[in-house]
Amino acid sequence: MAWIEPEIPAKPKNPLFLCVLSNTKTAHIPKLSAAGKTAELTDYTPAGDAELMETGNIISVPVLPMTPPYDTPTPAIMTRSALKLTGTPYHFVNSGLIVTPGVPCIDLKAKPGEDIREAIAVRDVQGIYERAKFLAKRLRDHTDHVVIGESIPGGTTTAKGVLSALGYDGNVSSSADENPLELKNRVVAEGLEASGLTFGSLKDDPMKAIACMGDPMMPAVVGLAAGFQEKGVKVVLGGGTQMAAVYALIKHLGINTENISIATTRYVVEDKSANFMELAKNLGVPVYVADPGFGKSTLKGLHRYEAGTIKEGAGAGGAMYLAGLHEISQDEFRSEVENVCKVLKAGE
Amino acid sequence: MAWIEPEIPAKPKNPLFLCVLSNTKTAHIPKLSAAGKTAELTDYTPAGDAELMETGNIISVPVLPMTPPYDTPTPAIMTRSALKLTGTPYHFVNSGLIVTPGVPCIDLKAKPGEDIREAIAVRDVQGIYERAKFLAKRLRDHTDHVVIGESIPGGTTTAKGVLSALGYDGNVSSSADENPLELKNRVVAEGLEASGLTFGSLKDDPMKAIACMGDPMMPAVVGLAAGFQEKGVKVVLGGGTQMAAVYALIKHLGINTENISIATTRYVVEDKSANFMELAKNLGVPVYVADPGFGKSTLKGLHRYEAGTIKEGAGAGGAMYLAGLHEISQDEFRSEVENVCKVLKAGE
Repeated sequence: MAWIEPEIPAKPKNPLFLCVLSNTKTAHIPKLSAAGKTAELTDYTPAGDAELMETGNIISVPVLPMTPPYDTPTPAIMTRSALKLTGTPYHFVNSGLIVTPGVPCIDLKAKPGEDIREAIAVRDVQGIYERAKFLAKRLRDHTDHVVIGESIPGGTTTAKGVLSALGYDGNVSSSADENPLELKNRVVAEGLEASGLTFGSLKDDPMKAIACMGDPMMPAVVGLAAGFQEKGVKVVLGGGTQMAAVYALIKHLGINTENISIATTRYVVEDKSANFMELAKNLGVPVYVADPGFGKSTLKGLHRYEAGTIKEGAGAGGAMYLAGLHEISQDEFRSEVENVCKVLKAGE
Repeated sequence: MAWIEPEIPAKPKNPLFLCVLSNTKTAHIPKLSAAGKTAELTDYTPAGDAELMETGNIISVPVLPMTPPYDTPTPAIMTRSALKLTGTPYHFVNSGLIVTPGVPCIDLKAKPGEDIREAIAVRDVQGIYERAKFLAKRLRDHTDHVVIGESIPGGTTTAKGVLSALGYDGNVSSSADENPLELKNRVVAEGLEASGLTFGSLKDDPMKAIACMGDPMMPAVVGLAAGFQEKGVKVVLGGGTQMAAVYALIKHLGINTENISIATTRYVVEDKSANFMELAKNLGVPVYVADPGFGKSTLKGLHRYEAGTIKEGAGAGGAMYLAGLHEISQDEFRSEVENVCKVLKAGE
């Protein structure tokens, strides 16, 4: 029984997983991001995700990998599980972190993103893009299939910002019980105004759309995709609306999209407050949808995914796609996720 | 005809090259290091080496890859050539750089090293070691044979410092026409005094030897070697006296050295002012010696290696060993080095 749809390709020879970690001060706007106990604590979330993916626990940052009251775990547990089950080689990429993790990251020398209501949201977009492309060039002779995830709190708002600047309508997903859509819409409207932009006014200048309305994860993933594309390496963007925004940027830059697709979770696709599939269809990007079947789990925290509290992050959808490539079943995957949760809970 | 002796092993399945880049303020002592036009300009040398290894040219830092009057090129040209000829996957590791390159590096969150005449030369030795070990754990399931190089100006003085603290005598090599041995001896003597140490007094505390007399490259390479050793991955340390000091640290830490050896250039071994082979014999480390045959080159700058001006660096000896593993001949290798030099010269 397939838990990833549509049917995924045959197992590649040399798969690779990359997770781009970034911060944007947009996440400091109160109540915008739920990826942290307070707005300021979201600074630690990507670093915590990386530590969890690498070690199965948090080793240096003050974050809660399980959110009370139900011990809802960060989606990084899914990525940890997939990496462990498949043994896929991986790296973390620091593209503008405020807080760096206690595990090694490949540094792209990016500054953290500013609040998109400032005139400039991302500095040195071209430099980040170029360094990411160098990285792809270094890696592309040794892989035929790359899955790229992201961890950046506030990232769905910057995604909406960039999509608006490029001329795409659409409500974005959220990692909260109630998607603060109205707040996000207001922040994006203020951001467009601060940069002197209107809806679609940057459809021919995607790099400027990143600089004015985006975040530092974007030029990193775009540069990676550009570098891999030159050698025909298959690229799967692991994520929801944020990766749709990245795909839109790639498309508007005129980069070949033939080998690029998106893999995300069922929870993003079923989010009624967002319109991910409509946007994907509009963009013409193939989408793989993974269902970890958390409803069958004995752990209450995992049920929160079924309730739509948390939907995606840290490349979880892409990581499940990787598990699928290795012919790991939904049951095996869920069982490993439960193990990871138990280790986390024990380490508290 | 063998240009690397003794006979090297059969080609591994998945070789990997790592180059650890660091700075120590010890290099700011006037006339100590020749790896830069002035003592302060040595800050840029590791970054320049990384850019040259990755791109064949210098892209962002104010360094001269060819030293006048003979256009003597940095040893990084040899590493560039070997990586190009063999297609070996590689990464740069930033362990305490003052200046970072315009190409991606894996960051170990190390601070630059202090002058060894200060009480503390390297901060957070244990943390650097642990993060390097994480990196080795991440990489070790995907490689069976790792070559590790280094680029750190002033590194032969810190090597001598650590060797003295561990109780090994010996004069160290240099990247200058005349090895400023007397100066290095004086700096090491002052360093030992500043830390309240005597010759051999830290033979049972190698981590403290790094903290007091070493540089941030050392805990990185030691941590990498420790991580790779746990899975029996073969490790070749590419370098001269500096890697002998690293090997001594590994040995004194009680880490299994069964799969660890050193690869260096003929120029280090033939340096009459140093006693590299005696030290290696004393340590019991197997040494591979590579001879690029630069005397046969038409480029005057390469002849300076035969004259003993520059001897080793940026893992050059290790990189030639890699070329040897891929059955590349001395002539093919030298010809590629000449190509790299011509591109560099054209780019000036």
